[in-house]
Amino acid sequence: MLGLTPLAEKAIKKLKEVHKPEIDKRLRAALEKEREYIPNDHPLFHDVIDKLLDFNMRGGKRLRPSFIVEGYRCVGGKDMDAIYDASLVIEGSEAWLLIHDDIMDDDTLRRGKPTMHVMYENELKKRGVQLPPEKLKHMGISLGMTVGDLQAVLTYEWLTKPDFPRELKEKALQRYNLVLRLTCYGQILDVMAETMPPEEIKEEDVLLIHSLKTSAYTLWGPLQIGAILGNATDKQLEIFYNYGYPLGIAFQLQDDILGLFGDVKKTGKPAHSDLKEGKRTLLIIKALENATPEQKKRLLEIWGNKNLTDEDAEEAREIVRETGSLDYNRELARKLAEEGMAAMEAADFDPEGKEYLLGIAEFLINREV
Amino acid sequence: MLGLTPLAEKAIKKLKEVHKPEIDKRLRAALEKEREYIPNDHPLFHDVIDKLLDFNMRGGKRLRPSFIVEGYRCVGGKDMDAIYDASLVIEGSEAWLLIHDDIMDDDTLRRGKPTMHVMYENELKKRGVQLPPEKLKHMGISLGMTVGDLQAVLTYEWLTKPDFPRELKEKALQRYNLVLRLTCYGQILDVMAETMPPEEIKEEDVLLIHSLKTSAYTLWGPLQIGAILGNATDKQLEIFYNYGYPLGIAFQLQDDILGLFGDVKKTGKPAHSDLKEGKRTLLIIKALENATPEQKKRLLEIWGNKNLTDEDAEEAREIVRETGSLDYNRELARKLAEEGMAAMEAADFDPEGKEYLLGIAEFLINREV
Repeated sequence: MLGLTPLAEKAIKKLKEVHKPEIDKRLRAALEKEREYIPNDHPLFHDVIDKLLDFNMRGGKRLRPSFIVEGYRCVGGKDMDAIYDASLVIEGSEAWLLIHDDIMDDDTLRRGKPTMHVMYENELKKRGVQLPPEKLKHMGISLGMTVGDLQAVLTYEWLTKPDFPRELKEKALQRYNLVLRLTCYGQILDVMAETMPPEEIKEEDVLLIHSLKTSAYTLWGPLQIGAILGNATDKQLEIFYNYGYPLGIAFQLQDDILGLFGDVKKTGKPAHSDLKEGKRTLLIIKALENATPEQKKRLLEIWGNKNLTDEDAEEAREIVRETGSLDYNRELARKLAEEGMAAMEAADFDPEGKEYLLGIAEFLINREV
Repeated sequence: MLGLTPLAEKAIKKLKEVHKPEIDKRLRAALEKEREYIPNDHPLFHDVIDKLLDFNMRGGKRLRPSFIVEGYRCVGGKDMDAIYDASLVIEGSEAWLLIHDDIMDDDTLRRGKPTMHVMYENELKKRGVQLPPEKLKHMGISLGMTVGDLQAVLTYEWLTKPDFPRELKEKALQRYNLVLRLTCYGQILDVMAETMPPEEIKEEDVLLIHSLKTSAYTLWGPLQIGAILGNATDKQLEIFYNYGYPLGIAFQLQDDILGLFGDVKKTGKPAHSDLKEGKRTLLIIKALENATPEQKKRLLEIWGNKNLTDEDAEEAREIVRETGSLDYNRELARKLAEEGMAAMEAADFDPEGKEYLLGIAEFLINREV
């Protein structure tokens, strides 16, 4: 991997070679164990588990559950077997939310294979169900939604099963509830923002969406859940927040910078996809705020235009540069990332856990532009 | 209320005059308390709570939470304050599942007011969002789904908050997880059955759907959750199962009999609605199984025909009678109901709790045909 600091490289290696195989193994086992709860050993319900196994085991970096494990390690937790089991909660929630998100986004593919509701639509076709295509699609969505709900239930099961003191498990579960609430609020605000003209979206709402959907859900939430299971103090929990909150926002800001200015070959995203789909990024919102009437008019013409040319995209980038929006975003991302790193550097945590979190932070914010 | 036994009348009076006001009050308070978790005091999130309050407080008999309370009482539980708070879990799950069900069924009304996804579609229109109607509808569905997910999270919060020994709360939560799994499986089987020709649906699958969606979710599930919080023995838990399992199926069988043969003025359902919508009832499935080729042909012509006449409906009823399906269903419902009642009558439970459950059972199965 090019451009990675040694610390980032070490953390990524640990994620891939230690955490991911361990989490994958336990996730598969937890889903297989679900067959014990199948009423009447019904083949249709075994098929639900088959589909959940397919969906869950398609890949996924397992970064969030690794944060549960390392948050626990940071505060001195020693029962790695139990914490790996508990870490499944946040990988399970990811499957639940992705199954539902794919319905909301009307996506047909997830990691190169059919989304859950499309798997069910295909299943109905395979069974020879004679219904109009629209009805078949709707039935697939109904089944996908329900399997998402089932997956939601499993997350709670996975958090309560491992062998930790019940007081800590209850506290961790309540923290998980908090994090999921924030995630849902972030999603609601995000969908709402999609319905608004970009000039009406406030900077604070864009940052709030990032803080809810990324900082809370991906960073400080899993870290705190793990740390709570390791009997962390409130002061320790605060450090994870001070690390994860700014870092999550910085990551998303930089992700948007990469989306607009990054090398298509390196980001792997289709050319100009953020522009074409009219993504409500702080880059665009800030540019519109500072633009001349002329620039604003042009940017709004280009933004959200599915047929834009390379020249249009270059012009949009120019406007984002000239209005100072690119500098503003870069500076904000840099400042937030530094804040997050500083909070972790100052922490009196287990050195191995701390090293991992510093390495991941460097990975998240120093990706090449 | 006509035709109620004194015991049923007493139980219904208790449900309406004692349980419902107590549960309504606490449900409202629990939702209002959610405002404390709203990030940035954002008006959009206060609006989510407003909508959840509207949806949750529209009515609802509160039968399921009353079972948590009475299951607890049956095994000697004394902390009525705590158990009423815990009982919200199953009313919250009802809101969660109804919000999602209404999307699956493409329903616009729930208890005479807009369903959650339609509330959001209307909200977007009110905000002047300029999008094609199909897109607006889809956005409403996305927001409704997410609010359903949020409501799912709240149920777990409501179960862990009340002051019971943590060991019992954890066990109750795991039982809740089991019941919700069964409910999801029931929903999956139900949606799948809707896609199948009625001749291919097996009797055992119809009974399995009833046992999952009604016996487990409405009857023995809530009863066992309450009883577990009252530190019930496994033997006591089994009694609730032996009561709720057959009774839930009996109730649904009788509900279907009422749907086809009941007096429209008394059932309150639109005339012939089960027939028109092609509901997969055991009445129809058994009739098809026993029918002559002639009867089968006619029944399949009438069943699912949205424009059927009163004469068609009467002919369908005749076939259901002549094939012995009505007698079969009545007899099965009677046998199951007796089984359930006998299990409760034999139980060494708190007399007040037992009396309530016997009264509710009489109410559920002795409604007029």
